[in-house]
Amino acid sequence: MSTETTKASTRERLLETAAVLAYRDGVGVGVETLCKTAGVSKRSMYQLFASKDDLLAASLEDRAEQFNAVIMPPPDSPAGPRGRIMEVFERIEARAPSPDYYGCPYLAVQVELKDAEHPASRVAAQIKQRLLEFFRTEARRGGAADPEFLARQLALLFDGASARAGIGADAMQGGLATRTAGVLLDAAGVRQ
Amino acid sequence: MSTETTKASTRERLLETAAVLAYRDGVGVGVETLCKTAGVSKRSMYQLFASKDDLLAASLEDRAEQFNAVIMPPPDSPAGPRGRIMEVFERIEARAPSPDYYGCPYLAVQVELKDAEHPASRVAAQIKQRLLEFFRTEARRGGAADPEFLARQLALLFDGASARAGIGADAMQGGLATRTAGVLLDAAGVRQ
Repeated sequence: MSTETTKASTRERLLETAAVLAYRDGVGVGVETLCKTAGVSKRSMYQLFASKDDLLAASLEDRAEQFNAVIMPPPDSPAGPRGRIMEVFERIEARAPSPDYYGCPYLAVQVELKDAEHPASRVAAQIKQRLLEFFRTEARRGGAADPEFLARQLALLFDGASARAGIGADAMQGGLATRTAGVLLDAAGVRQ
Repeated sequence: MSTETTKASTRERLLETAAVLAYRDGVGVGVETLCKTAGVSKRSMYQLFASKDDLLAASLEDRAEQFNAVIMPPPDSPAGPRGRIMEVFERIEARAPSPDYYGCPYLAVQVELKDAEHPASRVAAQIKQRLLEFFRTEARRGGAADPEFLARQLALLFDGASARAGIGADAMQGGLATRTAGVLLDAAGVRQ
């Protein structure tokens, strides 16, 4: 392997490890543990990332596409606005009972860091912004009375549902997330 | 001061410090920092608490009454079920814009620990259970079609609103939390 290829794969392993461990154990995971799990020396890590904070931020960014693909329907899905919004909540309900589900990774990072200026918080906030935009776009297409307000309601529902499922407080049985989304869509006049 | 009085005040300082620092900085706050801030030796701390985890759990328990008084109306408040439920969300909205507001401390602890068996997670879950019971009782008194389901919806709304306000993602302007609660109460048939 060329040096460039090695660097790329080292970087990849660090990003993957940081994402997995931070999600499972929290952002407090140590550099020692990160490097050991990734099979990378600390020296190599610091050649690629200025700090653990930067590695965390980069790992969140790196997974944004994958995260969006997991929570949102593809842009060309045939469903109407209501169906596309409902799909987000169907997906939470599908994952909620899993013991490996700790809720939205981007919410967790922000709750844990308690610092909106932290590089990882900034990245997390930006990525979550895309979900709000998705809700806003669909709300507008669906003829919502106040698309911005509905989008904020849905974002709130998303974070509440994923957080409560993530801590094991509610496994979303009985369609808790989808039926609640349905109530909000009805009230906003989004019928299809 | 008698030895017993000294012990009680040392315990009090540790509980207060743990509550304040864990809320502001997270459960990862170190024993060193906790003891230094409380002005207590580590030896004294370990005479009172078997571990930092036990101190954390005790500090959450210690503040439960205060927390409940902050988020819920008093048992003898004159408002009807709808008004009493709405008051919980009015209170979130009132606190949301504050930079010192990091959302519900009991949700944060559970999100951070990612371990439902941790002593602090157990205590947090028990305390939050009281809010769910409050919602269930009021939902039943208010004639909700399905009081249990409405209570779960309101708990989800509470955690979503407090989490999003706590991370600075949404300051709840325009009555986001109260109006959303109103939509859920309307749909469940709780008119007053």
